[in-house]
Amino acid sequence: MRKFKRLPQHIGVIPDGNRRWAVAQGMEKQEGYDHGIDPGFQLYQMCLDLGVKELTFYGFTQDNTKRPKQQTTAFQKACIDAVNSLAHRDAELLVIGNTSSPLFPKELLPYTKPVKFGEGKIRINFLVNYGWNWDLSHALDKQGQCSQALGKQMIKNIASCDISRVDLILRWGGRRRLSGFLPVQSIYSDFYIIEDYWPDFKPEHFYNALDWYENQDITLGG
Amino acid sequence: MRKFKRLPQHIGVIPDGNRRWAVAQGMEKQEGYDHGIDPGFQLYQMCLDLGVKELTFYGFTQDNTKRPKQQTTAFQKACIDAVNSLAHRDAELLVIGNTSSPLFPKELLPYTKPVKFGEGKIRINFLVNYGWNWDLSHALDKQGQCSQALGKQMIKNIASCDISRVDLILRWGGRRRLSGFLPVQSIYSDFYIIEDYWPDFKPEHFYNALDWYENQDITLGG
Repeated sequence: MRKFKRLPQHIGVIPDGNRRWAVAQGMEKQEGYDHGIDPGFQLYQMCLDLGVKELTFYGFTQDNTKRPKQQTTAFQKACIDAVNSLAHRDAELLVIGNTSSPLFPKELLPYTKPVKFGEGKIRINFLVNYGWNWDLSHALDKQGQCSQALGKQMIKNIASCDISRVDLILRWGGRRRLSGFLPVQSIYSDFYIIEDYWPDFKPEHFYNALDWYENQDITLGG
Repeated sequence: MRKFKRLPQHIGVIPDGNRRWAVAQGMEKQEGYDHGIDPGFQLYQMCLDLGVKELTFYGFTQDNTKRPKQQTTAFQKACIDAVNSLAHRDAELLVIGNTSSPLFPKELLPYTKPVKFGEGKIRINFLVNYGWNWDLSHALDKQGQCSQALGKQMIKNIASCDISRVDLILRWGGRRRLSGFLPVQSIYSDFYIIEDYWPDFKPEHFYNALDWYENQDITLGG
């Protein structure tokens, strides 16, 4: 296994391109999501082996649920299948998303508080029916869901306040945008774009990203 | 002049690399900022000629003011000089930043409400002593600075609520990160990175970015 002198502690993953991949294979768009599960576990295993502490996967967003019903059903199912498979491995899982909507899969409700699978070892955050506006607006309603909520400090009161700052964001599928991914935790993140679609994940994608990240000067805006 | 079939309406500019440019020229770091003014006007003129409606420049941030005093003084002066020069052209200027700190140059206070220079023609937003946390936290204190403030809608109550969604963000200097640039307006923005330092601005940088942008599929998260 490769070694790196400086690793990101927390990696964000935007696994884009499932539908474009499916169309390129002659499949229906919604068939792509199921092929996005295995790449996630390949990446998970590499992170576990390297010692990455935290991984956040972009499951699906409230924006995404405006797509045709077949697609919505397919990506909901892929999220449930992914969690059921993760349950047989080591992880500390936290699912974050708007649970007050029927579009949030009820099978994932038990994971909206951290749940330890096996020996834990790595924090996995999974954004499911997540919305950036829902996340930020949570700071306004003072329900204090966050354990460390403190007065007027915006960022301590957002819905995703238990997710830490993201060091490196990897996006597959060639698009160079955040598409609402954790706006507060992404403030200082470095972005690395992979042109290939997510179902075509290769270990080199990840190694190349880590090579690149090693040479970035991290200043946190200073 | 080049023509484009689809132009971004609102472009964000992160003019990074002034200090690295100065060092490469054998100058002191702080001498770089003054060389960042002319590129801004070149880009301004190109946007005016093409018909871009709104431009937002990242002047300096609250994070930046943690740098040595010589640098802080130099970038404050560059911002003031830029505005004084813009006053002789066409623009509708709005300066956004934390004015309650002595680090906000008092010379720019008159522009914290929109001011029309010449015939207007293009909206120029200038972020001066701007902080992403300051911007977002404004939504919590209900002072209603924003004309269209409405109840609990987070994004209508942030300090930068008069700045519209950004379509395309251009960053010079090779770093692939937002560094706190308008987190809400950047949610769906496409990012384009130019490796050259900002004082080495060339028209081709901008044309290449617009060529690239023309071929992006804009989905707003859908």
